[in-house]
Amino acid sequence: MLIDHLSIIGVGLIGGSLARALRKAKLVNRVTGCNRNEDTLKKAVELDVIDDYSLDIAEAVAGADVVVIGTPLSTTEKILPQIVASLKPNAVLTDVGSAKGSVVSAAQKVMGDKFSRFVPGHPIAGTEQSGVEASFAELFVDHRVILTPLEVTDISAHKLITEMWQAVGADVIDLDVKHHDDVLAATSHLPHMLAYALVDCLAGMQEREEIFKYAAGGFADFTRIASSSPEMWHDICFSNRDALLNSLELFSEHISKIKDAIENSDSEQLLSIFKRAKRARDQFTNIQKTV
Amino acid sequence: MLIDHLSIIGVGLIGGSLARALRKAKLVNRVTGCNRNEDTLKKAVELDVIDDYSLDIAEAVAGADVVVIGTPLSTTEKILPQIVASLKPNAVLTDVGSAKGSVVSAAQKVMGDKFSRFVPGHPIAGTEQSGVEASFAELFVDHRVILTPLEVTDISAHKLITEMWQAVGADVIDLDVKHHDDVLAATSHLPHMLAYALVDCLAGMQEREEIFKYAAGGFADFTRIASSSPEMWHDICFSNRDALLNSLELFSEHISKIKDAIENSDSEQLLSIFKRAKRARDQFTNIQKTV
Repeated sequence: MLIDHLSIIGVGLIGGSLARALRKAKLVNRVTGCNRNEDTLKKAVELDVIDDYSLDIAEAVAGADVVVIGTPLSTTEKILPQIVASLKPNAVLTDVGSAKGSVVSAAQKVMGDKFSRFVPGHPIAGTEQSGVEASFAELFVDHRVILTPLEVTDISAHKLITEMWQAVGADVIDLDVKHHDDVLAATSHLPHMLAYALVDCLAGMQEREEIFKYAAGGFADFTRIASSSPEMWHDICFSNRDALLNSLELFSEHISKIKDAIENSDSEQLLSIFKRAKRARDQFTNIQKTV
Repeated sequence: MLIDHLSIIGVGLIGGSLARALRKAKLVNRVTGCNRNEDTLKKAVELDVIDDYSLDIAEAVAGADVVVIGTPLSTTEKILPQIVASLKPNAVLTDVGSAKGSVVSAAQKVMGDKFSRFVPGHPIAGTEQSGVEASFAELFVDHRVILTPLEVTDISAHKLITEMWQAVGADVIDLDVKHHDDVLAATSHLPHMLAYALVDCLAGMQEREEIFKYAAGGFADFTRIASSSPEMWHDICFSNRDALLNSLELFSEHISKIKDAIENSDSEQLLSIFKRAKRARDQFTNIQKTV
């Protein structure tokens, strides 16, 4: 048994899938869930995702050996003090937020000497679906989980969370907090902004109906992420504000270059951008194949 | 037999797949290929995509009942006069270009009274691969082919090209030329620009290696189209210049709104953009399911 008593605060796609996977592998004795919405918790019991639940954070946390925070980032910062107050000695706390700087500094402020038992985490997994109904035990198989432990982070706590994610099939990597946020701004947060902006732009066009009717496969792939949870992405934007704004700025420069090349009939410039991008994308495909 | 003698000028992914599909369905007696590169043509004979070939356009076109132009758009405009000069009376000419306005006006200029036998076409199919080696007979099954016939277009020519595409499994739709170009600028040309700009932007960042290493599934989907042929997309940009510049301008306004909302901590504005986009994207998924 890896974990005797696990508590999941925020039983959604990620928290629910983690609970399912650990239960399936018989690596956890008891899973307690906590959520704002009792219907979700009843559903989670029904789906055999959790054993029991409490609507009260303190109650849900008390007695747990590992507490996983699966709430949107803005909620995480709000409920951290309550969670921390109820953690039993030696309990390990971790989260699954897509930005790490904001939650690390919030935890640093409220956790005092318990801060060493906090292991910030980010599973790079998910679908455009959300909610416990969409959760499944195999979500993390062959996906990366990035942990961003600090110098003060307890080695055994870090080890336990690493083993927990490895046990559900993930490939666990450690990254520096800032590095994580810069890389994720570029590879995930920026593309989501582009997809949201594109779909919003097309939906406002006169030809809206034909646009959606005649869109090809590439468009479906390209915009799938615009179906992601608006609330979650709202939180990510503000939690990773600076890195995301930098990425947006850089991207705008690149799209301007393309626009200028078309406007100025600059064949050479346009072709060199496309060729450079294709080379990089093909290289990315090769990296993905070899890891 | 739908077509006795078919001539494909530009034997690549699209032209090659069309030839394969028509041959497989035994709807064509003889397929002649023409290409700049003789190795491609030899390969196409070897792969049983075409029966014979000529490096000379006039020779490849002479005697054909249907001529399909499968070359990049800039090439199409260059070779049109040669093709037209060799068309036998009553032959039907069609193309597969992703922008229609430019090729229609080029054809109008050089075709004289043969212009009524030109049926402008655009199969909404393809992969990020290119070349005859990537061609396959099923490419068009359940894909849309947009034809943009004009008032002067001969009814029997239009009917033949419609039947040709339907025979290889496509769903054929007629659209007005300008309408086609506006809709495609928004749903296809603009997303390709965003993907190229994004990959080029990330490839230039300091964290380039980690960026490609830690990118998640959504990123792979989002940037797949950046592996498309730079030469083909270069041509599309200039062929659909005005509509594409309009789309880029509109998109820039939308991405600026997101950026401003993040900068000004305008939660409400950000959330309303994301919600509107999610609603439109979910609606798009439903449209795709029902057609």
